Amino acid sequence: MDSAFFSDLMASIAERGRSVLKLTAWPRDAANRADSLADMCAALLTGRGEASGLALASEILARYRALSDADRPVFFRAIADGFGPDPKHVQDAVARWAASADEDAASGIHYASEPRRQELFRRLNRAPGGTAALVAMRADLFECMREDRSLAVVDRDFHHLLGSWFNRGFLVLRRIDWSSPAAILEKLIRYEAVHEIRDWDDLRRRIDPADRRCYAFFHPALVDEPLIFVEVALTAAPPDAIAPLLAERRAHIAADKARVAAFYSISNCQQGLSSVSFGNFLIKQVVEEIRRDLPRIESFVTLSPMPGFRAWLETTDDPAVEALAAEARRLAQDESWAAHPESAARARKALEPLAAYYLLKARRPDGRVIDSVARFHLGNGARLERINWMGDLSVKGLFESYGVMVNYLYDLAEIERNHEAFANQGAVAASSAVKKLLPSARARASAPALPAPGA
Amino acid sequence: MDSAFFSDLMASIAERGRSVLKLTAWPRDAANRADSLADMCAALLTGRGEASGLALASEILARYRALSDADRPVFFRAIADGFGPDPKHVQDAVARWAASADEDAASGIHYASEPRRQELFRRLNRAPGGTAALVAMRADLFECMREDRSLAVVDRDFHHLLGSWFNRGFLVLRRIDWSSPAAILEKLIRYEAVHEIRDWDDLRRRIDPADRRCYAFFHPALVDEPLIFVEVALTAAPPDAIAPLLAERRAHIAADKARVAAFYSISNCQQGLSSVSFGNFLIKQVVEEIRRDLPRIESFVTLSPMPGFRAWLETTDDPAVEALAAEARRLAQDESWAAHPESAARARKALEPLAAYYLLKARRPDGRVIDSVARFHLGNGARLERINWMGDLSVKGLFESYGVMVNYLYDLAEIERNHEAFANQGAVAASSAVKKLLPSARARASAPALPAPGA
Amino acid sequence: MDSAFFSDLMASIAERGRSVLKLTAWPRDAANRADSLADMCAALLTGRGEASGLALASEILARYRALSDADRPVFFRAIADGFGPDPKHVQDAVARWAASADEDAASGIHYASEPRRQELFRRLNRAPGGTAALVAMRADLFECMREDRSLAVVDRDFHHLLGSWFNRGFLVLRRIDWSSPAAILEKLIRYEAVHEIRDWDDLRRRIDPADRRCYAFFHPALVDEPLIFVEVALTAAPPDAIAPLLAERRAHIAADKARVAAFYSISNCQQGLSSVSFGNFLIKQVVEEIRRDLPRIESFVTLSPMPGFRAWLETTDDPAVEALAAEARRLAQDESWAAHPESAARARKALEPLAAYYLLKARRPDGRVIDSVARFHLGNGARLERINWMGDLSVKGLFESYGVMVNYLYDLAEIERNHEAFANQGAVAASSAVKKLLPSARARASAPALPAPGA
Amino acid sequence: MDSAFFSDLMASIAERGRSVLKLTAWPRDAANRADSLADMCAALLTGRGEASGLALASEILARYRALSDADRPVFFRAIADGFGPDPKHVQDAVARWAASADEDAASGIHYASEPRRQELFRRLNRAPGGTAALVAMRADLFECMREDRSLAVVDRDFHHLLGSWFNRGFLVLRRIDWSSPAAILEKLIRYEAVHEIRDWDDLRRRIDPADRRCYAFFHPALVDEPLIFVEVALTAAPPDAIAPLLAERRAHIAADKARVAAFYSISNCQQGLSSVSFGNFLIKQVVEEIRRDLPRIESFVTLSPMPGFRAWLETTDDPAVEALAAEARRLAQDESWAAHPESAARARKALEPLAAYYLLKARRPDGRVIDSVARFHLGNGARLERINWMGDLSVKGLFESYGVMVNYLYDLAEIERNHEAFANQGAVAASSAVKKLLPSARARASAPALPAPGA
Repeated sequence: MDSAFFSDLMASIAERGRSVLKLTAWPRDAANRADSLADMCAALLTGRGEASGLALASEILARYRALSDADRPVFFRAIADGFGPDPKHVQDAVARWAASADEDAASGIHYASEPRRQELFRRLNRAPGGTAALVAMRADLFECMREDRSLAVVDRDFHHLLGSWFNRGFLVLRRIDWSSPAAILEKLIRYEAVHEIRDWDDLRRRIDPADRRCYAFFHPALVDEPLIFVEVALTAAPPDAIAPLLAERRAHIAADKARVAAFYSISNCQQGLSSVSFGNFLIKQVVEEIRRDLPRIESFVTLSPMPGFRAWLETTDDPAVEALAAEARRLAQDESWAAHPESAARARKALEPLAAYYLLKARRPDGRVIDSVARFHLGNGARLERINWMGDLSVKGLFESYGVMVNYLYDLAEIERNHEAFANQGAVAASSAVKKLLPSARARASAPALPAPGA
Repeated sequence: MDSAFFSDLMASIAERGRSVLKLTAWPRDAANRADSLADMCAALLTGRGEASGLALASEILARYRALSDADRPVFFRAIADGFGPDPKHVQDAVARWAASADEDAASGIHYASEPRRQELFRRLNRAPGGTAALVAMRADLFECMREDRSLAVVDRDFHHLLGSWFNRGFLVLRRIDWSSPAAILEKLIRYEAVHEIRDWDDLRRRIDPADRRCYAFFHPALVDEPLIFVEVALTAAPPDAIAPLLAERRAHIAADKARVAAFYSISNCQQGLSSVSFGNFLIKQVVEEIRRDLPRIESFVTLSPMPGFRAWLETTDDPAVEALAAEARRLAQDESWAAHPESAARARKALEPLAAYYLLKARRPDGRVIDSVARFHLGNGARLERINWMGDLSVKGLFESYGVMVNYLYDLAEIERNHEAFANQGAVAASSAVKKLLPSARARASAPALPAPGA
Repeated sequence: MDSAFFSDLMASIAERGRSVLKLTAWPRDAANRADSLADMCAALLTGRGEASGLALASEILARYRALSDADRPVFFRAIADGFGPDPKHVQDAVARWAASADEDAASGIHYASEPRRQELFRRLNRAPGGTAALVAMRADLFECMREDRSLAVVDRDFHHLLGSWFNRGFLVLRRIDWSSPAAILEKLIRYEAVHEIRDWDDLRRRIDPADRRCYAFFHPALVDEPLIFVEVALTAAPPDAIAPLLAERRAHIAADKARVAAFYSISNCQQGLSSVSFGNFLIKQVVEEIRRDLPRIESFVTLSPMPGFRAWLETTDDPAVEALAAEARRLAQDESWAAHPESAARARKALEPLAAYYLLKARRPDGRVIDSVARFHLGNGARLERINWMGDLSVKGLFESYGVMVNYLYDLAEIERNHEAFANQGAVAASSAVKKLLPSARARASAPALPAPGA
Repeated sequence: MDSAFFSDLMASIAERGRSVLKLTAWPRDAANRADSLADMCAALLTGRGEASGLALASEILARYRALSDADRPVFFRAIADGFGPDPKHVQDAVARWAASADEDAASGIHYASEPRRQELFRRLNRAPGGTAALVAMRADLFECMREDRSLAVVDRDFHHLLGSWFNRGFLVLRRIDWSSPAAILEKLIRYEAVHEIRDWDDLRRRIDPADRRCYAFFHPALVDEPLIFVEVALTAAPPDAIAPLLAERRAHIAADKARVAAFYSISNCQQGLSSVSFGNFLIKQVVEEIRRDLPRIESFVTLSPMPGFRAWLETTDDPAVEALAAEARRLAQDESWAAHPESAARARKALEPLAAYYLLKARRPDGRVIDSVARFHLGNGARLERINWMGDLSVKGLFESYGVMVNYLYDLAEIERNHEAFANQGAVAASSAVKKLLPSARARASAPALPAPGA
């Protein structure tokens, strides 16, 4: 029985239940629809009827979808205020625990204080399409949280439940290629966040040729919805620029001639699953699969952007790079700097050391690496392998990172060690080539070549 | 990519991580293996390494499987004592809540007091085969709880997590027939709990003919493991005895000639999922599917045992049935009563009213219906439709319920109403035919025929 | 094991065999490549080696693909001349038959005279991708036959073998929708022959909405290649024009509200299978499937072009329509006739009767209906139901058929009778509405309205 | 759309057509049913109606299935006599050919002389389940041919068509394991022809453990019917006896520890496809798949019976082995010879040289190797590697081949050369160990050890 049929069945049951529901209690055109919806949620929590429960859950989700932008915050407000823990239960459990303080009582507090939202979400999840609807609801919640941070109390429950439901043990890795359903492929076009997919032909160039791969994680309850996907180019050597990989006309190589698998784009698809992380799992499983399929692949690298580079450079007052940064800012005032060999060469002298410094040394106030992409790959245990000058000359690439791209290397033998060192001591694994680019190192390295003082 | 391949991949990653693990800290042949295992669980909770985390989880599950019967209670004891809520976190959160008592603080208590077992189980679930291993672990826990009720604190966490993971929105209904994988079919043989399946030929008679159906719920993470299944016979009229349905040689009918779908066996498969209930969902979805597939089916009934009947009858001291019960017990002293027409006829006069009384009137001290099967179907909204004399003459049937069987009717138009009435007022929906069997009703019905007092 | 893997395996075997092949006998750069290829074909027929046979077949197909336009006719010439029946075998068999003339000897002639091409094609078919390669080869052959009709002797063998291999018993009907593989969908775009599919959005509008369907026949050996497909619109009433069906913005209806299934495009995909017919099977199976899926559909009609109408009208000298045709030709000299209500109204008076006459009365010299689309549907047993004025105002529609479209009705109760009558007596089943449009009928019908003579 | 649904559809169409069929012309209870059936076949050939054609084909197949054992030969007789080539067509074509003798005319003879049976079978194949029905019909034909060899004229057409339809390019290789459908597994039990599968437990031991494999060829039109299957044991060394492979309790090894893949049973499943050969393809593809899956497997051997050994030994009068054969026959008169070490040792001295001679030297009158299993593997290019004394002590093994078994080695590097040498010169590739067992070789080798004459 396929899943489409199954969801039809579920829908039938819900439909049947609907006829039993006394929906008159919650008229569709109520003056305050969001409040009426919250009332229905309360009824769903108390009701015991199976079919009517399903019908009620479906009806709630349908009406939620129809809420206006103005109504949604009202609804979330009601969910935040009215579906927290039951105060009486909490008091009783705390009293019991205060009296005995044993394991059972402590655990009792946990169960007594569960925000009723969690059970609400679990019951909504039973409706046909419930999981997808909840993921979408959380994305809406993020919008509303921009205006009202206190709604974060709702997100805490969403995050907890979705984190549990999207446990890696439940995810399925699938290769995506030209024989994949169009319903999935169109989502790649929509969700690609790093290097835009322009149209179906562009998409095809990324998934159909023998030297291209694409993999995604799926959850069984979201059949046609990739959660995250990665695009891979099989190449003879680690790529140092993105344009040749995406070119309409390029030389193809046979898969068994490739020696490098280059991850050049990784995109999360579901805003409603943000901070439920699977990227690290994805890359490692894809590495395993490619190794199995193509044993001649020798190295696994990324070709990554450095999306926070310009923002950092324009605002940094780090004395270690003060002069270089000022120089770089000055050069970049001419927007066409990259187009002229001379200005580009001058810019390179400033920007390469700055890029190395940005990744290796610069830190946020909380001590973490600044660049989100760097944090991701270094956190996975990858090594900062190479900085590629003029790796991305697209408008976005020039704007965000002065065209610089990075290769991170996934060396399976070192990945755990790197990860531990990064997680525990914040140590960034890097090749000597990158370290040599550091301003001071460079200074030292090139010192002998300086004219002698007084000469 | 099929799931077998996927789990291979996961296994590879875990394997690779294993080489990184310093397993020397937990030697396999430690004097106290269960303690050593608990130590590994503690390490899993603190460790941050991805690959080594997977490897550690796999190793824990593998070692757990190898524990002896004597070691398992020790392990669960350690899990009960050492993986509860963090006391400091609880204290802090309670103090914060005592100070402010707002929603956020109350919710904060919940998250602060989560027993660490839950995160432990979530991390174990990431390992290849983790979900199945956890379900099996809970079944073991039940064994240990017989000796030590205080382990229930562990089960509370299992029950919560599994209940959330096996939310109905994640279950998949599948028809099972002779083209199903043998790996699944053998489990039907093993798990059938009502009318034993003797061998593969017996199994085939139940799933292969055109007038037989079988459906099961599956969870995506337990590929070859049905959670619960129901066997259905398509018949011309509601069946009143089980033997003809299971007979080796019987008349078959074409599916489109059938007017009745009879649910004659429903079995839960996973002990480790007990009290995570899906039976009600299953029956209703199967009703929907059969309606869609075979629109000429007019009624959906069960042919059910009455497994608690004899136990009740032998011990009841309910004055309303005192005399009848005594008579029935007396007759049943002759173990061959059912074999002789005369003694059977006498027994019928006592047992039919008793059966009706048992289902309609008798109650447990907590006010609930005594028979577990009756509770299940009445709770689903079914109606007690018919009591079938000599419905099951097997040894088990005679022993548990004096051979009496019951038809419960699933009438979609009434199911919600029945369910609500049963859930709220404990009202049992029943046909007039069954009501007429009640001792008093019978007495009243037959009153005119009684000799007049004083005559 | 999926088919991709399987064909990989086959390729491995062929590859291994290749190393054994003495390909030096047939150097790749031979002066006369087509001759060299024919030599290899001869070797394939005599060789007995299994692996080398596969390798040889693969090599032949690969080299064939690389032939230039100039080389292909040379190759087919060689195949026509050198791979016919073995003359000695034929002589012997004919002699035996002349001597005995029994069944066995007659049948013996058949087997003795099999053109060796058939065995050649059967051996080529064993290579990975062999079936697709042979279908493509026949399409090439058609090109060459334009110049050299004597190659038809080769096509006779192709046609025979492919007809046998693509026997309807081996075809699989599949619904195509937005969850179908992109590899198949792109072929719909490519092969659509009636109403061009402009791009992926246009395609989606034809297969994704709930009131649209698309079905195709597939052969198991051509996994991603539809053989023929039909596009269906579910509508409230039989459509009388194509543009509203294909409009970007149009009102959708729920599938269960539809009463009509309109087949508005049917396209053969494989030129190499021409005259191996499956269109009639396709339409009837689709009718069955829609009936099963949507029991409320009451009628099955086409919305069809009349592609031969203008060509006939411009050249006919049939006295029965001489005057009308002359009038129509005159009106059509103004290319914008359709854009002006007046000229259009005048044209209608001539073109509707002509269309009815063209379909109902006009015949080719061999007595057959002229219009190929009409022949197809009438041959299937459909009825000529309605002529739709201004049904297709596209450039192609106006050019080929003056914008006229036709509804053919598939009435299952009459289909066999219509078919037999058409096949045996050439009788065209038609509605009275269409018959009334006939010139003479019209004349009669409108006679009373004519001004009285002498008035 | 799955194939079950598809065949339902086909059945609907056939069913609908049936209502149109004037079946009164062929009453079901006709005195001579087989003749009536042949009449229906004639009608099928002439009829042009599509739906009625399908209905007629279905009806013919249904009635054929109901024929009695006595009726079938009558039916085949009618098919043999009445559905040969059209005599007039043959005459005309022969005349044309006699006049011109060109390619086209020779080919014309072929098409003019096609037995009408072929078109009959092609039309029957269109009915739902047609292919399976035709395969079964041919198996029946074999039965009838035992009594009446002249029916072979019918088989010639069956053989031709089925050979074309079951072309290797259309076959699909699938691995069979414990997750395969029961409907397929039961057929392994039924069709296993070499070492009987006793029950489901025995079956499971052959396909479920990690060191066992099973593969089969399938044809898309016979979904649940394997055509041929092979059972493989993964072992550390080439096995020399069958019993340890099939033992209930045996040591398992991990698949990646195995170095040998031993093909210990290969069975054709469809009698109706006999002499349509795919065994050679099967073994070679399985070798490829195992190599890909388990690259550490170093050798591929069979463990084969020698089914014709005793029959040959008991009747041979070959002077080269006269004395040894007489000795062997004498020893075997004691049926318990194998149970006693002494008699077994004596038997070995005679039987091993005889076995080597039987395989290496003995020939049928037509010059071919006598043993059918040897012919198969040697014909595939395998090498006779080892003769295993007491390899099969089952009743069948002792009876057919005195318990001797054979390893044939599939060495991919030599397979083509061996095949060619065997096919062209009848040369048997054999290890020196086997050659040394030859009587003369042995005589020479052991000559010095013989007692001196007169001693």
